[in-house]
Amino acid sequence: MKPQKKDNIDLEKMRHTLSHVLAAAVQELYPTAKLGIGPAIDNGFYYDIDFGDTKISDTDLSKIEKKMRGIIARKLPMTKRTSSKSEALNWARDHQQDCKIELIEELPEDAEISFYDMGEVFTDLCKGPHVKDLSEVGPFKLIRVAGAYWRGDEKRPMLTRIYGVAFNTQAELDEYLKRQEEAKARDHRKLGKELDLFCFSDLVGAGLPLFTPRGTELRELMANYSLSLRGREGFKKVWTPHITKTDLYKTSGHYAKFGDELFMVHSQVNGDDFAMKPMNCPHHTQIFASRPRTYREMPVRYMEATTDYRDEKTGELGGLSRVRSLTQDDSHVFCRKDQIKDEVKRLVGIVKELYSTMGMSKLRARLSYRSDEDKYLGDKKLWDMAQGQIKQAAIDNGLDYFEQEGEAAFYGPKIDFMAEDAIGREHQLATIQLDFVMPERFGLEFINEKGEKERPVMIHHATLGSIERFLSVFIEHTGGWFPFWCAPEQVRIVTVNNTVFDYVSEITKILDSIVLDKPLKYNELRYTVDESADSLGKKIKRATEMKIPAVLVVGPKDAEEKVVSIRLRDREEKVKLSKLAEFIKGLK
Amino acid sequence: MKPQKKDNIDLEKMRHTLSHVLAAAVQELYPTAKLGIGPAIDNGFYYDIDFGDTKISDTDLSKIEKKMRGIIARKLPMTKRTSSKSEALNWARDHQQDCKIELIEELPEDAEISFYDMGEVFTDLCKGPHVKDLSEVGPFKLIRVAGAYWRGDEKRPMLTRIYGVAFNTQAELDEYLKRQEEAKARDHRKLGKELDLFCFSDLVGAGLPLFTPRGTELRELMANYSLSLRGREGFKKVWTPHITKTDLYKTSGHYAKFGDELFMVHSQVNGDDFAMKPMNCPHHTQIFASRPRTYREMPVRYMEATTDYRDEKTGELGGLSRVRSLTQDDSHVFCRKDQIKDEVKRLVGIVKELYSTMGMSKLRARLSYRSDEDKYLGDKKLWDMAQGQIKQAAIDNGLDYFEQEGEAAFYGPKIDFMAEDAIGREHQLATIQLDFVMPERFGLEFINEKGEKERPVMIHHATLGSIERFLSVFIEHTGGWFPFWCAPEQVRIVTVNNTVFDYVSEITKILDSIVLDKPLKYNELRYTVDESADSLGKKIKRATEMKIPAVLVVGPKDAEEKVVSIRLRDREEKVKLSKLAEFIKGLK
Repeated sequence: MKPQKKDNIDLEKMRHTLSHVLAAAVQELYPTAKLGIGPAIDNGFYYDIDFGDTKISDTDLSKIEKKMRGIIARKLPMTKRTSSKSEALNWARDHQQDCKIELIEELPEDAEISFYDMGEVFTDLCKGPHVKDLSEVGPFKLIRVAGAYWRGDEKRPMLTRIYGVAFNTQAELDEYLKRQEEAKARDHRKLGKELDLFCFSDLVGAGLPLFTPRGTELRELMANYSLSLRGREGFKKVWTPHITKTDLYKTSGHYAKFGDELFMVHSQVNGDDFAMKPMNCPHHTQIFASRPRTYREMPVRYMEATTDYRDEKTGELGGLSRVRSLTQDDSHVFCRKDQIKDEVKRLVGIVKELYSTMGMSKLRARLSYRSDEDKYLGDKKLWDMAQGQIKQAAIDNGLDYFEQEGEAAFYGPKIDFMAEDAIGREHQLATIQLDFVMPERFGLEFINEKGEKERPVMIHHATLGSIERFLSVFIEHTGGWFPFWCAPEQVRIVTVNNTVFDYVSEITKILDSIVLDKPLKYNELRYTVDESADSLGKKIKRATEMKIPAVLVVGPKDAEEKVVSIRLRDREEKVKLSKLAEFIKGLK
Repeated sequence: MKPQKKDNIDLEKMRHTLSHVLAAAVQELYPTAKLGIGPAIDNGFYYDIDFGDTKISDTDLSKIEKKMRGIIARKLPMTKRTSSKSEALNWARDHQQDCKIELIEELPEDAEISFYDMGEVFTDLCKGPHVKDLSEVGPFKLIRVAGAYWRGDEKRPMLTRIYGVAFNTQAELDEYLKRQEEAKARDHRKLGKELDLFCFSDLVGAGLPLFTPRGTELRELMANYSLSLRGREGFKKVWTPHITKTDLYKTSGHYAKFGDELFMVHSQVNGDDFAMKPMNCPHHTQIFASRPRTYREMPVRYMEATTDYRDEKTGELGGLSRVRSLTQDDSHVFCRKDQIKDEVKRLVGIVKELYSTMGMSKLRARLSYRSDEDKYLGDKKLWDMAQGQIKQAAIDNGLDYFEQEGEAAFYGPKIDFMAEDAIGREHQLATIQLDFVMPERFGLEFINEKGEKERPVMIHHATLGSIERFLSVFIEHTGGWFPFWCAPEQVRIVTVNNTVFDYVSEITKILDSIVLDKPLKYNELRYTVDESADSLGKKIKRATEMKIPAVLVVGPKDAEEKVVSIRLRDREEKVKLSKLAEFIKGLK
C-alpha cells in the first residue's frame, strides 16, 4: 500500500502545481483578475478567480490552456519562501489581491506565512507542497468553468471556478476523459428529456420532478418489482399520509435532531401545524401500535412505496440525483431479538436478487458497527448479539463485505450496499438498519409465550433506496437502453407503407396476448404502432432515438411471407409470425 | 307534484310544532333551562337548549319524550299572536330567556314580532307556521343529544341540541328507525376498526387515516380497478409531487379563489414557500406543456391516483367520510373541441361499469349547465356546443339524467353522478367536468393539421372520487361483506385438528394457483390458514367476525374423502378438491 500512497502524494503535488500554472496563465491573459484559492482535488485541480466584469466560458479554456503549456515548457522552479504577516499583506495589497488580503488578515499576527514562487513569473500565497519544477508536471486538460461562491458562502460574491484534470500518464488522462464523455452521453438529465421520462416546471419548483407516462411506467415497474420481492417474503403493503403532527417526531426523537430541516406545514383554516414526512418509520410504528400484538404474528412486516419530502438546499438539486420529493421503497420489520438474523438474511437475499436483475450484481456491503463511544443507545449486549447476527447473515448470503467500527447509526448497526454501474462508478443505494431505539420511544410491545410484554426490534430497509435516485443511476447505467422487461415502450411496429395495416392487426393481436412473467409477474407488453406517412427511414430513426428495444419493420413482403423483421439494438432478425410471441418473450 | 308539496308543508309544520312541544317539556322538567332555537329539519326537528350546569345525555330522552306525549295528549291549540319589539323584549326578560333577548334585539325597532302560544302551557318567539292543535301531531321519537355552538359560532357557548324524528305514519317512522339502526351497524368507522382496515393516531393527527395491510389491500384494489378501466381506454399514468410553488396556483387562478384554504408548506432551509396540492389538474398541465404537441397525439389522457391535501375544519372530520388526506383516482383529458362528446361518452361508460361492479348500479346524473349570468368564463358558443355534446353522451349511454341550469362550474359544464347504496342513501361520487379556462391560463396548445396553434379543452374526471370517501360509502354499502374479488382476505382455512396439515398443503397449493381475472385482471387469491390450537368454534367465530367470504373447514374426514367444506355468508357447500379452484373462481 505504501508506494501507492507516495504516488498519490506526488500526483497531488503535481495537480496543486497545475493550479498555480493556471493562475499564472490567467494573470498574463487577464491582468486585473483577482485570485481566490486553487487546491488539488480528485482527478485534478481548480482555481476560483474573480474576473470582474469579464465573462469567462468553456470556449476560453483552450486559450488559457495554451498559455499554461507555454509556461510549463519553461520548466520554471517552484520555490518556497516565508514571510511575516505584514510583509505578506504588503505583497497582497501591492498586487491588489483582495481575496488574498482577506485570507492573510485572518492568520495570527506572528504567523510564518509561506509563499511559492514559480520562477519569476508568478507568486502565490500557499502552504504547498509542490513539485520541484514544472518539468515534473504531467498531462492535463482544462475541462470546465463553473460558478462558486467565495469561501462557499452564498452571501459572498460568485467567483469563476476553472476545473482541470491531470494524471501521471497520457493514457490515464485519455481513459478518464473517455469515461467522462461516456458519462456525459449517459447523463440522466439529458436522457430523461430525450426519452421523455420526466420534466420539471418553473411553476412547480426545483427538485420536484413530474413524471410523464413513460417515466411513470418505468418508476412503477421498478417499485412494483422491488415490492414484489418482499411481498413474496411476507411483507404487506400499508399506506400512510404524507404529513403528520410534529408530535410524532417529538416522540420518535427526530424533532430534536432534525426539527429545523423539516418542511413545516401550516393549516390556515385551523391554525395547527404539521410536518411533511421525511421518512416513514414513525408512521409505521403507529399501525403496529394500533392493536395488541402477540408472539404468534411476529415478525410483522410492512412495506410502502411512498414519497418523502426533504428540504435539500436549492443549489444541491440536480435531475433525479437529489430531489425534494423522494419516493422510498421502504419497509419495516418488527421482530423478536432472536429473529434478527433470519430477517436480515431474507433482506440481503432480496438486495442481491434485485441488483442482479438490474445488471449491477457487483455489490459491496459495509457492515457498520458501534465503537466504544457513548453515543450509541441501547444495551451493549443486544448490540453485540445483533452485530453477530448481521455478520452471519452476510456470510450466509456470500456477500462481499467489509466491517467498520464506529460507523453505525446511534440506534443500531447497519448494512449499506454499494453497487457498481456499467462504467465502474459505485453508488450507495440499498440499506438495512437495525433499530433498538424507536420501539422504545413509541413503547411498542407484543405479548410473548409467557404472557409477558416484550419489546420488538425494528429493521428499516429500502432495496432501491429512493426511486428517483435509483432511476438517476439506472438511466446512466443502461444509457437509456433499458432491459426489455422494464422498457417503457418495449416494441414499436413501423410500417413500410399503408398496404400492410391488415397484417399489422394480425401482429398486434399476438402482441396483445403477450404477458411477461419474469422478473415481474403480469407484465403486459407495451407497444405502439407508427403508421404515419413518414418515410421508413425517418420512422426507424425516431424509434432508435427513443431506444426502443425491439422495432418491428413491416412491409408488403413480410405480410406475404408471414414474417416480421425485428431490429434489436445489436442485430436484426427475421422471425416467423408463428414464432413471434416466443421470440419476444425471450428478449432480455 | 303539487299535492306532494302540500304534504311536505304539513309535515314540516308538524315537525316544527314538535320542536315547541320538546321545548315545553324541557321547561317543565328543567325550569332554569334557556331556549335557543328549534326548527324543523329533514326527517324531524331539533331544539338547541342551554341547560346550565345540568348535563343531558341520551338516557334523559325517554323522560323528556314521556313528558312530550303528556302535553300532546292535551290536544292544546297553537295560536299565533303579534307584539311590538318592546313587549317582546319584556316577555323574554321576564322569562330570563337570554338567547331570545339576543334574537329580538337584532330585529328592527318597528318589527311586528310573532309568538306562538301552545294553550297556556308554553309560548315561544316564532314565525311559524304550525299545526292547528296538538291532535295533528304525528308519530315521533327523540333520537339523540349533541353539542351545538349558539348560532353556529365556535366562539359562542356550546348548547345542547336534542334531535327528534317525526313522520306522517308510524310505519314510516318505524322504517326510518330501522334504516338508522341498519346504518349504525354498517358505520364504516366501527367496521374499519373491527375489520382492521384503517386506524388513526393522536400523534399523526385528525383526518389523517393510516391504512393497515387489509385496508391497503382494499384501497389498492379499488384504485387499480378504477384506473384499469381508463387504462383500457388509452389513459396513461403520470406521477406528480404533492407540493408545488404557489406560482402554479397563481397561474391557474386557484390562489386568488382558494389561497387561504391551502395547506402552506415552508422550507426552513431555503426560506421558500410551497403549497400542498388540493387537486392535480395544474400539475398535469405542466406535463402536457413539457413538450410540443400535434393534433396526431390528441386526445392526450393522463391519470393518477394521488393524494391531495385539503384543510378541512377539525370539527368536520369523521372516519373516512371527510379527511385531510384524500386520494383521488384523478384524470385529465386534453382534447380538441370536436372530441368532447366521444371523450365524455367514454368516461360515462366507465362510471356505469364501475358502479355496476360495486353493486351500485342505480345511478342518477345531474347535467349542470351555465345560466345567463356573467360569472361563466369562456365563449358562450363553446358552452352551448359542449352542453349539447354532454347531453348527447348522456343519452347515448342511456343515463338516468336531469338538467340544471346555473349549476355549472365557472370554467365549464359538468356531470355529477349520484349512486344509491344498499340502504337507499344517495351519494355524490363520480364527476366529469369540462374546463375551457385552465388551458387558457396555462397557454396550452397543439399544432393542428393546418400547422396553426390550437387550444385544447380539458376534461377533469374521477370515477371513485376520493378513494377514502368512496371506501366510507362502500364499507357501509356492503356492511363489510365485500364482494369476493376485493375482500382483503378472501379465503380462510380453519383446521379441525392438527392431523390435517398435509391435506391443508394440498389445498393451499390449489389456492396459490388461483388468479381471478374479473373485474380486475391478475388478482391473486388472498388467503390465510388458521392452524392455531383454538377450538373449531372459536376459529369459525373469528373468521365470521372478520367477514371472510369463504371459510374452508378442514377435518380428517374431509382429508379422507378429498373434499372441502366451505362456509359462505349465506350457505355451506361441500366441494370436491378437484373442483375447488373452479368453485372459488365462481364466487361473487
